[in-house]
Amino acid sequence: MKVYRFGIAGPGVIAEKFVQGLMVTSNAVLAAAASKNISRAETFLEKYASKYPDTKAYGNYEEMARDPDIDAVYISNLNDAHCDTAMLFLNHKKPVICEKPFALNAMQVSQMIDCARLNNVLLMEAMWTRFLPVTERVVSWINDGRIGVPMHAISDFGMALIDRPEHRTLSFHNGGGALLDLGVYPISFFNMIFGGQPMLIQSMVAKANSGVDIAFDAVFRYKMTHNLYGEDHVTAYTTVSIDKNMTNRMLIIGSLGSIEITNFFAGQSAALYRSVEPAIVIEREPVEIFLPERVDFGYSHEIKSFLNCLDNGWKENPIMPLSDTLDVIKTMDLMRMQWHMKFPQEN
Amino acid sequence: MKVYRFGIAGPGVIAEKFVQGLMVTSNAVLAAAASKNISRAETFLEKYASKYPDTKAYGNYEEMARDPDIDAVYISNLNDAHCDTAMLFLNHKKPVICEKPFALNAMQVSQMIDCARLNNVLLMEAMWTRFLPVTERVVSWINDGRIGVPMHAISDFGMALIDRPEHRTLSFHNGGGALLDLGVYPISFFNMIFGGQPMLIQSMVAKANSGVDIAFDAVFRYKMTHNLYGEDHVTAYTTVSIDKNMTNRMLIIGSLGSIEITNFFAGQSAALYRSVEPAIVIEREPVEIFLPERVDFGYSHEIKSFLNCLDNGWKENPIMPLSDTLDVIKTMDLMRMQWHMKFPQEN
Repeated sequence: MKVYRFGIAGPGVIAEKFVQGLMVTSNAVLAAAASKNISRAETFLEKYASKYPDTKAYGNYEEMARDPDIDAVYISNLNDAHCDTAMLFLNHKKPVICEKPFALNAMQVSQMIDCARLNNVLLMEAMWTRFLPVTERVVSWINDGRIGVPMHAISDFGMALIDRPEHRTLSFHNGGGALLDLGVYPISFFNMIFGGQPMLIQSMVAKANSGVDIAFDAVFRYKMTHNLYGEDHVTAYTTVSIDKNMTNRMLIIGSLGSIEITNFFAGQSAALYRSVEPAIVIEREPVEIFLPERVDFGYSHEIKSFLNCLDNGWKENPIMPLSDTLDVIKTMDLMRMQWHMKFPQEN
Repeated sequence: MKVYRFGIAGPGVIAEKFVQGLMVTSNAVLAAAASKNISRAETFLEKYASKYPDTKAYGNYEEMARDPDIDAVYISNLNDAHCDTAMLFLNHKKPVICEKPFALNAMQVSQMIDCARLNNVLLMEAMWTRFLPVTERVVSWINDGRIGVPMHAISDFGMALIDRPEHRTLSFHNGGGALLDLGVYPISFFNMIFGGQPMLIQSMVAKANSGVDIAFDAVFRYKMTHNLYGEDHVTAYTTVSIDKNMTNRMLIIGSLGSIEITNFFAGQSAALYRSVEPAIVIEREPVEIFLPERVDFGYSHEIKSFLNCLDNGWKENPIMPLSDTLDVIKTMDLMRMQWHMKFPQEN
């Protein structure tokens, strides 16, 4: 069994959760961390010294990219740096798993994809939600026809992330905002359920003083369907906010039933309901509940899938294909266009 | 104690639920029913002959309007007839409780309100949801600050009402469609929670072959708020359908907690949740659950409130004021305008 040696580009809070995932993965180890501030990389690695005594700290990404001892790179620096960082490692033939949002816009994502293909290297968005056992179960319930045809999905997704006006998520230059940091989750989830981009988007935004979005509401139409009586449509809604907590639930309504996911982005649990006649007083108990045990924060599942691609020589992950990553960022680009919100890098 | 004698205009399925409400109301009785088809009125009254042996059937509304024995009228005929029917009874000084949708559009509702004021007679929309114990409890939770500032409301509301292309709810001429028949519930509920009309509406529709709406999705913005970081907004979403069942749940998200109402339109039960930090694996148990016993289908509460107005000589119900009825139909007019959907009567 090949054991893959991971380098971390951007060792911050999110990277700690990634290493938690590494620690429960038998064929991967933490090998290095790189930060423009080398002491940041050193401090990060020290935390895991007992488990991973043999690691290297780098004060820049280039050196880590040239290190022949690194088998794969996890990127978790600021949103605006993802594109350049990913391309640097890809050009050094390092397989890359890069945090979401994958980049600032579709142009950057296209460049990353082209770069990976040119170098014939594995590139994958770290959309961990797609690899969670709860998500797997939900997808299999849908594929097995347990809720009939999925017709709607509804998500309220909010976290009180902002605690000061200088917070990263409010930074216009670094690609902050509710859409890129949190909105990407429901949008990517909808893309997975309904199989592609929406054909119609209606959205409304509330902006921070810095220019990014603090909160938004959006309705997406995925398909028009037709029945004996006329049209019907397949739609999804999300309300997303970085200044307050919400229930973070995902509801999927099908023609024969519905699925409710608790903390959908982290795949806490899922419940399957049968559709009921519109009786007035009904007991509505789930037909099935799925509540998996957690072995880590939840990143181990995407890590295992990434490693499986490496083992098989795949250059793309079939569960989180690059075409979906590109579709999702295109949807987000369109929403920002509706909001007249361009990042400084886009002017 | 004055016992009020009710006449029913349009004795159909809904009127049966109204009479169930009368039967558990001590100061009201069923006195008459009027239908253009008198045998329909007779058949209806026969069902209640053991409880109400002393009733009269009318083959037209005018005769019932002239009957000095009738203290109040409940209108439950087809949507397009509400306006004329209500005005007929109001002009005969009969207090009127009229089913929702109150009329086809704001112009008709204004005429009805003017007519009631001119005649100095009580007029009230039969929006029974507002009078249910669950709704009362939810309003008091909100007023007591139990969820902080209400920031969002989300409702999925669908019933498989259509069973043939000629179904009443598909009738363009009779004011059919998802919006007027079902959409009025969440829109009126949002109006109650957020205190008025939305300042911004985004909606998308799926139309029946007949021209009415089978399903729609809409986001409403009620208020812009401001904090240290910039804007935030108060919004509500509903997806409504007459061709499939949904969960019929109402979720209200506040700055400090949330409320979930089961079968919100019928006020089945309500649960109050505390806002939680965005922890990943959390147990999320309600702080309080309210599950009232039902004494009837649920119309008795609006009937009692209507009778209370009569006892007090009020010409308007403070819980369901005519200004709210007018605001809600104005919102619906605007949505139909967005959908290029005009009823034949409006051309």
